[in-house]
Amino acid sequence: MRLAPLLLALLVSLPAAAAQPTTRIPQSALDTAAKLRATALADDTGWKVTESLTAEVGPRLAGSEDDARAVEWAKAKFKELGFDKVWTEPVTFPKWERRSQSAEVLGPHSQKLVLTALGGSVGGTAEGQVVRFPDLESLEKAAPGSLSGKVAFIDYRMERAQDGHGYGMGSRVRGAGPSAAIRAGAIAYLMRSAGTDNHRVAHTGMSRYADGLKPIPMAALSNPDADQLTRLLAVDPSTRVRMALDCGWDGEYTSQNVIGELTGSTHPDEIVLIGGHLDSWDEGTGAIDDAAGVGISMAAAKLIADLPQRPARTIRVVAFANEEQGLWGGRAYAQAHAAELAKHALVSESDLGAARIYGFDAGNIDDGAKDAVQQIAKALAPLGIEWRPGEGDPESDVGPFAAMGAAWAWLGHDATGYFDLHHTPDDTMDKIDPKVLQQNVAAYAVYTYLAAQAEGGFGSSPAKAQQPRSH
Amino acid sequence: MRLAPLLLALLVSLPAAAAQPTTRIPQSALDTAAKLRATALADDTGWKVTESLTAEVGPRLAGSEDDARAVEWAKAKFKELGFDKVWTEPVTFPKWERRSQSAEVLGPHSQKLVLTALGGSVGGTAEGQVVRFPDLESLEKAAPGSLSGKVAFIDYRMERAQDGHGYGMGSRVRGAGPSAAIRAGAIAYLMRSAGTDNHRVAHTGMSRYADGLKPIPMAALSNPDADQLTRLLAVDPSTRVRMALDCGWDGEYTSQNVIGELTGSTHPDEIVLIGGHLDSWDEGTGAIDDAAGVGISMAAAKLIADLPQRPARTIRVVAFANEEQGLWGGRAYAQAHAAELAKHALVSESDLGAARIYGFDAGNIDDGAKDAVQQIAKALAPLGIEWRPGEGDPESDVGPFAAMGAAWAWLGHDATGYFDLHHTPDDTMDKIDPKVLQQNVAAYAVYTYLAAQAEGGFGSSPAKAQQPRSH
Repeated sequence: MRLAPLLLALLVSLPAAAAQPTTRIPQSALDTAAKLRATALADDTGWKVTESLTAEVGPRLAGSEDDARAVEWAKAKFKELGFDKVWTEPVTFPKWERRSQSAEVLGPHSQKLVLTALGGSVGGTAEGQVVRFPDLESLEKAAPGSLSGKVAFIDYRMERAQDGHGYGMGSRVRGAGPSAAIRAGAIAYLMRSAGTDNHRVAHTGMSRYADGLKPIPMAALSNPDADQLTRLLAVDPSTRVRMALDCGWDGEYTSQNVIGELTGSTHPDEIVLIGGHLDSWDEGTGAIDDAAGVGISMAAAKLIADLPQRPARTIRVVAFANEEQGLWGGRAYAQAHAAELAKHALVSESDLGAARIYGFDAGNIDDGAKDAVQQIAKALAPLGIEWRPGEGDPESDVGPFAAMGAAWAWLGHDATGYFDLHHTPDDTMDKIDPKVLQQNVAAYAVYTYLAAQAEGGFGSSPAKAQQPRSH
Repeated sequence: MRLAPLLLALLVSLPAAAAQPTTRIPQSALDTAAKLRATALADDTGWKVTESLTAEVGPRLAGSEDDARAVEWAKAKFKELGFDKVWTEPVTFPKWERRSQSAEVLGPHSQKLVLTALGGSVGGTAEGQVVRFPDLESLEKAAPGSLSGKVAFIDYRMERAQDGHGYGMGSRVRGAGPSAAIRAGAIAYLMRSAGTDNHRVAHTGMSRYADGLKPIPMAALSNPDADQLTRLLAVDPSTRVRMALDCGWDGEYTSQNVIGELTGSTHPDEIVLIGGHLDSWDEGTGAIDDAAGVGISMAAAKLIADLPQRPARTIRVVAFANEEQGLWGGRAYAQAHAAELAKHALVSESDLGAARIYGFDAGNIDDGAKDAVQQIAKALAPLGIEWRPGEGDPESDVGPFAAMGAAWAWLGHDATGYFDLHHTPDDTMDKIDPKVLQQNVAAYAVYTYLAAQAEGGFGSSPAKAQQPRSH
């Protein structure tokens, strides 16, 4: 039973790859891409779009009134930028709201603590002794009932890295910590923010309770507050806190993936998909996460639209709905467009900020398209971008489609400073460097144009489903 | 009438200076200071004291319950560190409280803004169109009634500088802006924080209303929020905000200057005074402002107390009450000890953070003491501290006593990063570098010891009153 799908996949995909002719990008396209690169490095469309979204809409939590304003903004912006087609596709999800949150140390060292409810948290007030764990593993080993009446606190500090890999463990502490706390009997869950800064801004993000467990309030302390709680526990291991969260689930909401398209001149049914996500967390203005992704992809397409003629393939820019609470927009897109998967030449999303793009690669690629990937890499090299075969991933919202077999590209932002700001009130426009944003737009413009002008496909195929590259 | 006091001062001070023998620091004291310097650079008393105050007491707004806890903490800490005498002196002041604060942009671009009530603000809710002014001068020129029903907003960004001089204009915008707004008819006052950072933490600080004006709510926006409001005003000059402050004055409170002393071995009635201020603003834990000053001065004296014998003069460490709301502790000290002014050999306070000390000088100094000042400067040089004749000032709480004629010393902290944190929630322990704090303690230990061992005085005299050095 288990071997059958694998064998089927091999039978379908291997001959197809072998039979396919080599994909090539013509010299004329490379010449145009070089001009596009120079234009992009002197253009401020990316900045203006990103600034407009962060200022005029501001924070835009999925399911809020701000979400609806963001959808209207995106439709208007696509039209203003001259896209050929603009439409929306519905995305339905449960709605979570944050109304208020506070916490304080009780007793002789009384003081307020800065925290933020984790997305998906139930509301409630909890008061109890804090028990500190250095990491997720140690909380998972706590005996059932051992935290009865107490507040579990995981004091794990996530690691800073260019590729952002420290977020792997950081987000596991957020995702799995609450359930481990409940199993040990805790009345509430606190964690050190999954973030690398040292400011009094806490990092929110989605969590969930494992099936069958009774939910408890869950929140993240800012790094300085986690330091402080740790110090107080060293002075007095019986330190108690009170935390009060007013938040929770409230029905369903239907938002929209907002899509703008430049219609291909010779292969209008073939699509190069780029994008970012339109929603953000509610405490910042979502500049690096992910107005920048929307701005970069809209601007890259706009610069291509300004060329004398449309490229061969259609360029589709998607402003995805509700990425933050579980890739809702990306999953809806994959589901709605499953039948056209093979028509998607390449898919990619910009969702790791607006720092310098340093790496490039592609995945789910046929052997016959590898030369074309190298051609793109060469065109990106003058931007300081290295071809890094085997690195990278399809980012967030294109992940579900890539998992279904879509060929994908990775234009990797330097994430060294990303998790200083990610999911905090501090994710604001001033954190973006306009010159660096131009490099981002130039990279996306060059990549997108060449993908749209490549003669031959890249390898998207349902046969590649369930075979994502692992690394 | 005007010349008389000046002539009197000249008659009193000049002959005194001329008659005074040269003050010298003996070689044995310089040798001991060198050892003290090495000991301090390997000692963590300063760190422990600062950490203890910021963690165990936390924020300590003057007049709050936390203020009372801080006083108890300081008494206990002086005793624990082995000071010879510990006592308190009362400081009475009006009590100001912050209960809650919020603001939002109204209308099509609705979003929350991060702000903080200025100290001394009345409470109240104001809703109105925002009128932006680039600086204080332009608001001061606004015609009476021209801001009727509107919110005045000064968008002045303070300058970063090693000596912190940008705070001069920054604090004037805070101090004089509200009255200018009232004169023009505004219903509320907003300013860009007097701070050099770009985080979502606003900088509070004291302000006041000029006599006879009807108070309006006054607050500072974080720098990113001031950026955002400016962007929105560019998009829509009729942008409106609502701000709601719950804060205000509530009676009087008596706190305490807490004083610890090492009794001098041969001149116990002569005093070298060092210190920091015990109170802090309420949103951070007051680490750099000014637990560090308390920690540096307590630790410096403690290291001197650990020597085989007490220095010649008494060393007095003062943890001043309520510096933040108007030098209440410093003024109370000056008033209570006016009669003993001449017995204070030198006074100084550490109240500009915990970054590297880079400069040294002294003021209100007799000519006969100038060699001794140079000797101290030479002993500080191995710590990377330059003698900078003519720079510096007596810091905050010793200012009133210096203005009355006390000789003072300046050990100048590098303030380049100080106004990133000053008066914000971000003023927390993690911002202090333990190694740099050791340099601070070493500087204070060397300086204080040499001042206490100098043979001859420095020049404190009521005759120097009203003649502060100007620069």
